[in-house]
Amino acid sequence: MAEQPKGTTIILFSGDMDKAMAAFIIANGAASFGHDVTMFFTFWGLNALRKDERVPVKKGLLEKAFGKLMPRGVERFGLSKMNFAGLGPKLIKHVMKKHQTASLPELIEMAKEQGVKLVACTMTMDLLGLQKEELIDGLEYGGVGTYIGDASERNVNLFI
Amino acid sequence: MAEQPKGTTIILFSGDMDKAMAAFIIANGAASFGHDVTMFFTFWGLNALRKDERVPVKKGLLEKAFGKLMPRGVERFGLSKMNFAGLGPKLIKHVMKKHQTASLPELIEMAKEQGVKLVACTMTMDLLGLQKEELIDGLEYGGVGTYIGDASERNVNLFI
Amino acid sequence: MAEQPKGTTIILFSGDMDKAMAAFIIANGAASFGHDVTMFFTFWGLNALRKDERVPVKKGLLEKAFGKLMPRGVERFGLSKMNFAGLGPKLIKHVMKKHQTASLPELIEMAKEQGVKLVACTMTMDLLGLQKEELIDGLEYGGVGTYIGDASERNVNLFI
Repeated sequence: MAEQPKGTTIILFSGDMDKAMAAFIIANGAASFGHDVTMFFTFWGLNALRKDERVPVKKGLLEKAFGKLMPRGVERFGLSKMNFAGLGPKLIKHVMKKHQTASLPELIEMAKEQGVKLVACTMTMDLLGLQKEELIDGLEYGGVGTYIGDASERNVNLFI
Repeated sequence: MAEQPKGTTIILFSGDMDKAMAAFIIANGAASFGHDVTMFFTFWGLNALRKDERVPVKKGLLEKAFGKLMPRGVERFGLSKMNFAGLGPKLIKHVMKKHQTASLPELIEMAKEQGVKLVACTMTMDLLGLQKEELIDGLEYGGVGTYIGDASERNVNLFI
Repeated sequence: MAEQPKGTTIILFSGDMDKAMAAFIIANGAASFGHDVTMFFTFWGLNALRKDERVPVKKGLLEKAFGKLMPRGVERFGLSKMNFAGLGPKLIKHVMKKHQTASLPELIEMAKEQGVKLVACTMTMDLLGLQKEELIDGLEYGGVGTYIGDASERNVNLFI
């Protein structure tokens, strides 16, 4: 089976903490396994790449509203289930610490260190009014063409 | 890597506007890239293929209720997040127009023009009581076997 | 195209009845088609593998709370849409019986009979405090490495 290219792409569409965790755990696992890995962050998932702090950039009113309504980074994500108005994520973080599981920010750092390619969807940036200054460092920028180009050469392609 | 077949299948399970947009953007991107593309519409995603207008067909009570409770076509879909009782989709449509992004009905037309194969899940049609007359033109009809047959020959297979 | 390995993996992350049904229908379809099939149950999806009855095991307080808040098995799953406080799943089960569609417990049995490999995510078991005694028989246990190992050799890899 050596003829087949091995590799992974993950589209992170969702802006939920649990789904982002799953995405980064799979990405890191695949990278350890020797796969080329690309993560493509689109729609709500793009918020995973936002900086923690407020970044002063010039924006229209609607873009400002979007920016405020959406979470700045994974530390502010909620759960897709059992969120309980923010209590759920705290409980999960608590049990993760207890079991010495890597936190989401640590998983992102690990992904960068392992050479996982993190791509911010430029169409989403346009629509939601998010600017490069507001996103973390070490990203690439691209659209659906970038995604398809990588996915075409891989066999593990997930939409999360 | 020429030995590997290139191609895309997308299962649209979700009935959310944002996820349907992602599905059609990827499908159109893959088709432009030269992929054979199949989209398989199942469960709530099947509603993306419903005609906009009410179609008079004979149905049982339960099927009538399902038909009324579920949206007729993508224009009536809500968002998976920040729906705000229907305000969210309006805002998104507004910014899409502003950025001259193709609307969801335009993306569906584009997919047809590019030869993307649109398959309505017949099991879902049976369960929810949706009939061919209620769905848009230019569809194929099939079950899980149709999906697996196509996915087996492709490498980019997504569930949305 | 004989050079390409054919096979399917499905990550069931979601704990919704409709998504679990989709996952098992695809898994069974792929197995009938001759694919090697692995299903990996993680996060909320792990609840699909819980026994129906309460199993007396020793647990901490938090693990007890998680165990009670999450559904014991697929028969207690809700719908991702139109759940209507539990009425939705009953309606769906009703129409499924009317159309003689296999129920979710039957689909799980079928998957076992067809040799679908069912893997319980051990990291999730640790985090949520679920123990082997609480899960149904006939499972394998593994982490992300187990998943990547199988997905690397397959071309249909879905995240549900």
